Amino acid sequence: MSDKFFDAHKDTLSAAVSASDTREYWSPYPEMPSPKVYGETGAADGEAAFKAYLGKAFEIDQPSTGDMIGDEASPFGIELGTSYPAPDVDALIAASTSAGRAWGRASIEARVGVCMEALARINARSFEMAHAVMHTTGQAYMMAFQAGGPHAQDRALEAVAYAWREMTRTPATARWEKPQGKRDPLVMEKKFYIVPRGIGLVIGCATFPTWNSYPGIFADLATGNSVIVKPHPKAILPLAISVTIIREVLVEAGFDANVITLAVDTLEAPIAADLALRPEIRLVDFTGGSEFGNWLEENARQALVFTEKSGVNSIVIDSTDNMKGLVGNLAFTLSLYSGQMCTTTQDIFVPKGGIETDEGHKSFDQVAEAIAKGVEAFLADDARAVQILGAIQADATMERIASAEATGKTILKSRAVTHPDFAEARVQTPVIIKTDAGDTELISAECFGPVSYIIATADTAASLEMVRKMTQTKGALSFGVYSTSEEVLEAAEEVAMDGGVAVSMNLTGGVFVNQTAAFSDYHGTGANPAANAALSDAAYVASRFRVVQSRRHAA
Amino acid sequence: MSDKFFDAHKDTLSAAVSASDTREYWSPYPEMPSPKVYGETGAADGEAAFKAYLGKAFEIDQPSTGDMIGDEASPFGIELGTSYPAPDVDALIAASTSAGRAWGRASIEARVGVCMEALARINARSFEMAHAVMHTTGQAYMMAFQAGGPHAQDRALEAVAYAWREMTRTPATARWEKPQGKRDPLVMEKKFYIVPRGIGLVIGCATFPTWNSYPGIFADLATGNSVIVKPHPKAILPLAISVTIIREVLVEAGFDANVITLAVDTLEAPIAADLALRPEIRLVDFTGGSEFGNWLEENARQALVFTEKSGVNSIVIDSTDNMKGLVGNLAFTLSLYSGQMCTTTQDIFVPKGGIETDEGHKSFDQVAEAIAKGVEAFLADDARAVQILGAIQADATMERIASAEATGKTILKSRAVTHPDFAEARVQTPVIIKTDAGDTELISAECFGPVSYIIATADTAASLEMVRKMTQTKGALSFGVYSTSEEVLEAAEEVAMDGGVAVSMNLTGGVFVNQTAAFSDYHGTGANPAANAALSDAAYVASRFRVVQSRRHAA
Repeated sequence: MSDKFFDAHKDTLSAAVSASDTREYWSPYPEMPSPKVYGETGAADGEAAFKAYLGKAFEIDQPSTGDMIGDEASPFGIELGTSYPAPDVDALIAASTSAGRAWGRASIEARVGVCMEALARINARSFEMAHAVMHTTGQAYMMAFQAGGPHAQDRALEAVAYAWREMTRTPATARWEKPQGKRDPLVMEKKFYIVPRGIGLVIGCATFPTWNSYPGIFADLATGNSVIVKPHPKAILPLAISVTIIREVLVEAGFDANVITLAVDTLEAPIAADLALRPEIRLVDFTGGSEFGNWLEENARQALVFTEKSGVNSIVIDSTDNMKGLVGNLAFTLSLYSGQMCTTTQDIFVPKGGIETDEGHKSFDQVAEAIAKGVEAFLADDARAVQILGAIQADATMERIASAEATGKTILKSRAVTHPDFAEARVQTPVIIKTDAGDTELISAECFGPVSYIIATADTAASLEMVRKMTQTKGALSFGVYSTSEEVLEAAEEVAMDGGVAVSMNLTGGVFVNQTAAFSDYHGTGANPAANAALSDAAYVASRFRVVQSRRHAA
Repeated sequence: MSDKFFDAHKDTLSAAVSASDTREYWSPYPEMPSPKVYGETGAADGEAAFKAYLGKAFEIDQPSTGDMIGDEASPFGIELGTSYPAPDVDALIAASTSAGRAWGRASIEARVGVCMEALARINARSFEMAHAVMHTTGQAYMMAFQAGGPHAQDRALEAVAYAWREMTRTPATARWEKPQGKRDPLVMEKKFYIVPRGIGLVIGCATFPTWNSYPGIFADLATGNSVIVKPHPKAILPLAISVTIIREVLVEAGFDANVITLAVDTLEAPIAADLALRPEIRLVDFTGGSEFGNWLEENARQALVFTEKSGVNSIVIDSTDNMKGLVGNLAFTLSLYSGQMCTTTQDIFVPKGGIETDEGHKSFDQVAEAIAKGVEAFLADDARAVQILGAIQADATMERIASAEATGKTILKSRAVTHPDFAEARVQTPVIIKTDAGDTELISAECFGPVSYIIATADTAASLEMVRKMTQTKGALSFGVYSTSEEVLEAAEEVAMDGGVAVSMNLTGGVFVNQTAAFSDYHGTGANPAANAALSDAAYVASRFRVVQSRRHAA
């Protein structure tokens, strides 16, 4: 195998390794859907490519039962109708095992080269991916482009960079020379081989099929494991496209395409649990609800299991010198993708006695009202609102909106928004509920979607204590605090450390508590029940492979 | 807290990091018990210090029920009679949690400094440790000095070096500046904190109490976890001494001594299983039998569990250009510490048609006989034999010797050796059994102790295939091959990769298949059932801590 792909991308790899070391800003994949970057016809070509999948059988040549399945539905209401080969699970696993052998024995450079070339090609198809992500997840177009495209590619490359660094820290060979006093030294020649664990199963989610699955896929591939991708039945296309691109590069590099395969299922006949228990599956990466995530951790004992599950994300408001910025920042956070992010804030804790601000003292009710009004104003214009909100992905989320309103505690009700381009799009503005710290059952259960609680507490210390406890018991993937007091910010850092959650302080501009930047921000920590791993750190990759050594006396 | 300990040892740390990168020979702890290194009175002082423990209550001030327990017995027959405070488990865990708080928040330098100062002091007490290890494990004096002292210290430092490197690869702070076209860039100041998981439980074994426990203890400590050490009831003293030395350094550095505590139990009233299931225990390191190791992996779900269990270690003999060297090397391997090493070879596969050697063709029987005679001759002199064999640690090992002889397949029987210094020492030479590949039940079950099988196979390909299968199903921590054919050696490397076991080729000199050198050889791989981790690699340390970040807009 030549290392042409590795050679072509080694500077990018080196920059990625360096960025993950310094954690400064860096990205090789431009996030703006600009014709200058992606070509004058890029947008149109991408849309055409997407449309070509609709109502058709998706072409991928891998072991299948012969049945074609798929029931994706666009939250924007367009007809999809793409069908995919139903996997013959036994044959698929056999093919994955067989393909994995040469892949696991290939050089680190060959594997990393394939990963990086695949990412470059995936990047070039970001417009196509934008439509695929948009019409499966309900993300608005710009978000689908960024989060489904370049930002997901960043996270993939980050995982490759970590894998590269961990694999190459062990030298390929060593000469070991131990002095023996006056006698000749003992001299051994040693070789060290990186060996994979087996097959990695990557189970995708419905809301971020690429962003959340790429790290596991690319970490597994880089470290020599073959991969079976099991997309969420409602978000198959983005991963199907990704898998075919990777397969194409694999074949060009002289490998078996089945190093990566697609295992599609339906909501009616799910296969993830069976797959995850197969002895050949030695790695599982899962993003989704806590129930199945915890089941995987408990039951897929033959595998290393990496999970990102659900939790309850909080913000503590103590005081601010920029009330307008606070409200604007929160309005965006609560509205973005209708709160269908695992990092969206659910619980906003405010002292019942109110807070000090640059606009003077604000009572608890005034703060709650400011946030509710801020969200309302931010989404007042339908044409603009749909670009932020996207559409509601799941029926269950619609039901949660209804349940939240049925509590009778709403200070902002959800409004159905008419999409100018998609008449049947299911677009809803957020619900905001006002309650107090005693309402524990409500506030300590995750309510995935556009539902947030503004919660009156005794004081900021009580707010922080609630976050500490909730994060430790329910888990969290984000945490924010607003305060003009360094003492409170330090206390919030202590809560963050105790709860094992990243903290964002006084966000009033263009950075949001629910967004993380690859190479700089870790997504998740692995230190609370919301996730048992972080994207990406050394722990995320270091046990995906093992080192086998060979030693002999030096000639 | 000052960083005086870190400053004192930082060059050693830096050399350790470098050695683990290059995997060349290096050790800061001299393995020869030389007065030039350890002082003119070192040997006598160490012996006196050891004797001072005998028949006494071991002094360690930590939460206890008030009872004194302990039933260690010297395999060399001397009276021990040291007693230890029985732990009050609830109080011990509470004390560990409380002590762990400041420890987890301390700087990386402060923690690593304490670890390295403790290791320096443990090194200075290597003679005392030699006696403690010898009279609990049955290791001969020289081995107890080396494996219980400097070699164990090497493995500890190696774990600290890996922990240091993984913790410091994330910067403490970063400035993230994202361009925004013509607008001002987004600029965030970020802080990254290393946070521990909780309490680490380290469960020691009876044969290598320090060597096998130090990596877990020091990896946990370096990464900010408090540690509870649960020694094997028959090998408490070496870990008790180690723990008190670490406690002394902790206090000098301004920390609570209970960052590390000792939880002693007895064979009659074991506490490891209960301890391992406590929610506060977030890390478990275990060395010992597969049954309890597998139980821990299955049941201690709240913790990360690192195990080194049992397996069946093999050597494949295909051909040799140094028959004498082969026999000599094997005689040492099979005799050392009466085979009571998790790395000792059990199964020796030889083609039934015999092998080519520098002494001409040798039939299978001739090879078997040469090995048996080699062992016999090597141990012919009692005074020399006891220095290699040490004594039998467990009654169960004596029973395994008897069972092996009862098979009626022995070509070498075990001989009771009289120890010139210890009349009641339980010293036995190895049993060697001759059988064939069809005797699967016998050869595929671990028989811990001085029992080996020389097994006739169809040919070398069949030998290698048996090793592949056995390693994958039963696990192995060592694998050796003898061949003059590069093709066979390559095939053996393939088996090593498939079985996830390190391979040693054509060892005919002073390096033995059952010995690994810290900083260069990995002990275990984590890739077969004998162990789920390797000592030490990045995977061994990287998930013992998590990274929590804090970000805010730059001022």
